[in-house]
Amino acid sequence: MVGQANETFEKLIAHYRETAYLRSIEGLVTWDHMTYLPSKGVDYRSEQIGYLAGLIHRRRTEKVIADWLDELVNSDLAKDPNSRSDCTIREIKRSYDRSVKVPVDLVEEIARVGGQSHVAWVEAKKTDNFTHFQPWLERMLDLRRQQAEALGYESTPYDALLEEFEPGETTERVSSVLEGLRNELAPLVAAIVDSNKTAPCEIIQRKYPVAMQEKFGKHVAAEIGFCFDSGRLDVTAHPFCGGAGPNDVRLTTRYDEHDFANGFFSIIHETGHGLYEQGLPKVEFGLPPGEAVSLGIHESQSRMWENLVGRSRGFWQHFFPSLCEAFPEATAGVSIDEWYAAVNDSRPSLIRTESDEATYNLHIIIRYELERAMIEGDLSVADLPTAWNDTYEKTLGVRPDKDSVGVLQDVHWCEGMFGYFPTYTLGNLYASQMFDQANEELGTLEDAFANGEFRPLLEWLRTKVHEHGQCYSPSEMIQNISGKPLSHEPLMRHLKTKFGELYDLS
Amino acid sequence: MVGQANETFEKLIAHYRETAYLRSIEGLVTWDHMTYLPSKGVDYRSEQIGYLAGLIHRRRTEKVIADWLDELVNSDLAKDPNSRSDCTIREIKRSYDRSVKVPVDLVEEIARVGGQSHVAWVEAKKTDNFTHFQPWLERMLDLRRQQAEALGYESTPYDALLEEFEPGETTERVSSVLEGLRNELAPLVAAIVDSNKTAPCEIIQRKYPVAMQEKFGKHVAAEIGFCFDSGRLDVTAHPFCGGAGPNDVRLTTRYDEHDFANGFFSIIHETGHGLYEQGLPKVEFGLPPGEAVSLGIHESQSRMWENLVGRSRGFWQHFFPSLCEAFPEATAGVSIDEWYAAVNDSRPSLIRTESDEATYNLHIIIRYELERAMIEGDLSVADLPTAWNDTYEKTLGVRPDKDSVGVLQDVHWCEGMFGYFPTYTLGNLYASQMFDQANEELGTLEDAFANGEFRPLLEWLRTKVHEHGQCYSPSEMIQNISGKPLSHEPLMRHLKTKFGELYDLS
Repeated sequence: MVGQANETFEKLIAHYRETAYLRSIEGLVTWDHMTYLPSKGVDYRSEQIGYLAGLIHRRRTEKVIADWLDELVNSDLAKDPNSRSDCTIREIKRSYDRSVKVPVDLVEEIARVGGQSHVAWVEAKKTDNFTHFQPWLERMLDLRRQQAEALGYESTPYDALLEEFEPGETTERVSSVLEGLRNELAPLVAAIVDSNKTAPCEIIQRKYPVAMQEKFGKHVAAEIGFCFDSGRLDVTAHPFCGGAGPNDVRLTTRYDEHDFANGFFSIIHETGHGLYEQGLPKVEFGLPPGEAVSLGIHESQSRMWENLVGRSRGFWQHFFPSLCEAFPEATAGVSIDEWYAAVNDSRPSLIRTESDEATYNLHIIIRYELERAMIEGDLSVADLPTAWNDTYEKTLGVRPDKDSVGVLQDVHWCEGMFGYFPTYTLGNLYASQMFDQANEELGTLEDAFANGEFRPLLEWLRTKVHEHGQCYSPSEMIQNISGKPLSHEPLMRHLKTKFGELYDLS
Repeated sequence: MVGQANETFEKLIAHYRETAYLRSIEGLVTWDHMTYLPSKGVDYRSEQIGYLAGLIHRRRTEKVIADWLDELVNSDLAKDPNSRSDCTIREIKRSYDRSVKVPVDLVEEIARVGGQSHVAWVEAKKTDNFTHFQPWLERMLDLRRQQAEALGYESTPYDALLEEFEPGETTERVSSVLEGLRNELAPLVAAIVDSNKTAPCEIIQRKYPVAMQEKFGKHVAAEIGFCFDSGRLDVTAHPFCGGAGPNDVRLTTRYDEHDFANGFFSIIHETGHGLYEQGLPKVEFGLPPGEAVSLGIHESQSRMWENLVGRSRGFWQHFFPSLCEAFPEATAGVSIDEWYAAVNDSRPSLIRTESDEATYNLHIIIRYELERAMIEGDLSVADLPTAWNDTYEKTLGVRPDKDSVGVLQDVHWCEGMFGYFPTYTLGNLYASQMFDQANEELGTLEDAFANGEFRPLLEWLRTKVHEHGQCYSPSEMIQNISGKPLSHEPLMRHLKTKFGELYDLS
């Protein structure tokens, strides 16, 4: 019987490897869409992507997979929890069960309406007209609630949606951690404001020639471990990390000649995602043990490299001399202390993507609470703009004077991606908790960074996170790494120390 | 019954449009392979391409297509020859019948051995060792002869292979036209040599900064009609024209700072291919009436724009001033007559891809005769290098001193592409015969070029060639355009006039 199960397992794997060809091709087609597609090629490209998505969906929901899984879930291969074979069977079953639970009609409607809703959102944001977007958001909300009902849940429909992005996580646990974070973070942000101290941001806004920004960014990305023989860096309107194969990880950024931080920290952020992708087991590409475990864990890697590494003093002790060499005019007369303060400027603001390490998580908590209230029926879409503005005023002390810099700023809701936002803050929390542990196991990392040593941290992440693929759930992973469940404390300790020093807080 | 046939026809078309998504995605994946793929991504990319090719092959040989065709070939839709529906049915039937005639085992073996043979050829060329390549070439020759037997033919197996690249053409007709061409071309080339006049080639080899070559090349490509909203220009080791959709035509070239002609005429050549692709009916993309009719006709478009337009005096009367502006140092003191002579330098040489407008076709005729002799069993692979060298000496008066600049120079044979070479010269012949007719119908084109007017020729080609897709065979097309069958005379008239003047031949 073991021979029989092994044979079935091989069939399942072969099927998934073929699907991985299509998915990685989809990755390339999407990347090209964002980078090099001629402007008039957009319509046909959408058709190509739609066709590929359909092909992939059909392959992933083929009835034969259910037959294979039925045989495998009770076999020896699924016996040893967290083994590669158990992970493969468990995760394929999880995603298979989820996809067949939702009626095909609903899947197609979500895709179709999502596309139209996206167009309406772009228009509404441009014309600052929430009313134009409102019926579409209502529609997407309704469709996602239908999806949650189809998927099923224990306590709240939000659970069913969260599961898509952060497998194994619950609304209750997320709420409790975010609540703890908010209670300590809001006073810290208030103290920064009250300090009346401002960072010398003007330094960052001097002239940084774009070609040199690219060269310097690639140099740093390579030095912290990104392999450019297995990846690239290109330019897009919105930075992302995509890919088209196990040795083909593609980062993008955007450059602003008068905003060094925008381009540079986008590169380091996407490099963090890219290091995770490059660290996944290549031989298991496209199979669960070779795939990223969750959005939250993915974000932990990008945030760790962007903030805990890239915005640390040690990092700049190492890179400041080459920065000055690359941009002699912009950095003339600038001390490393001024530079460090400038890249860590913190102040309450309206736009999430432009916010700093400290205030960022308050932007997320606001969104999390609003979307949860909408999904649970406690907030109507009509009331959303006012609720948004009130919450911003209460939480961050700033109030948008128009919806384009308020409730219309993010793309997520127009496509109905409810349950996505909290993964950003989960990423920051995972990152700090992992980083604390790494510091304990490897010695003071900032000292290593100051010596240009980034490999020890990368190797540690490879062993603790990357090579496990989806063998452990995010919460198992953080427990294995730190011996504790996820908590807001490591992140708060880090923020209090760093900004306490920068803003002379007692 | 008409309703029934219409319904079946719609099914056939829908099937082909879906296949076109995959084929155009294959186009993108292949383009990316040549342009931006990270070096370590090559192995997985080959697997992706192989998987896609298999998917496409299976779709194109599905049994249901035969059933649809059986119904359609006798329907009213196939009644009006050269109509869009007749073309669709006829050409799908032609390609379907061809693909099912060849056993799948053989198709796969040709693909597999072709890949290995390619590797052996690269190594043999690098080490100048024909013996290393010989068994692979023997193998490919044998496989292609098996393929020809499977496909069937009337007089020679070469017919069956030629049909793949130039549908409807026969070895007998091609031989007769090439024979006529050779008889007049060889004496012309000899007369050029005997003139002892040399062009001022040194001008072309001055310093032409690469960034400016790209800018100037794109400027010219756009001015002769290439739409960059529906296409791109990038850099690859070997120039080509590929594409990923009806509004997504991708040209590539290579640049050499000290060889202006190499990069520039590659751009114009590929632009010629690109103009054809951009001129095909977009709504029929992926269907026979929306696809290029043959390699020969494709090459007629690239050669016409490269040579008959791009190497004409009128063309440079228009572009020489902007050339001088773009490259003030390299063109300092150069007259337009010297420039015109330099870009039309003609002399016998060893390498086909570096040869000029006059000698080029002798390189092709040599290859055509050798490959035909091999396919027909009159020349063994072991005897090929000597036969190659002897024929070069006899025909062009030059003898390779090593195989890397002789029989090993081209990629085609290692992949078993016998029947491909003659399409290059057919392209030159079609081009001249069309160009003569265009001159007659539109007035002296060189005068138009001198005034920067390239639209009339492009519009003429759109009407005469591009918009017909595969509705007419290449020989029908040239007959429709010129009222005559294909002949060597227009090309010879052109070459004699042009080089007679340039080299003071009487």
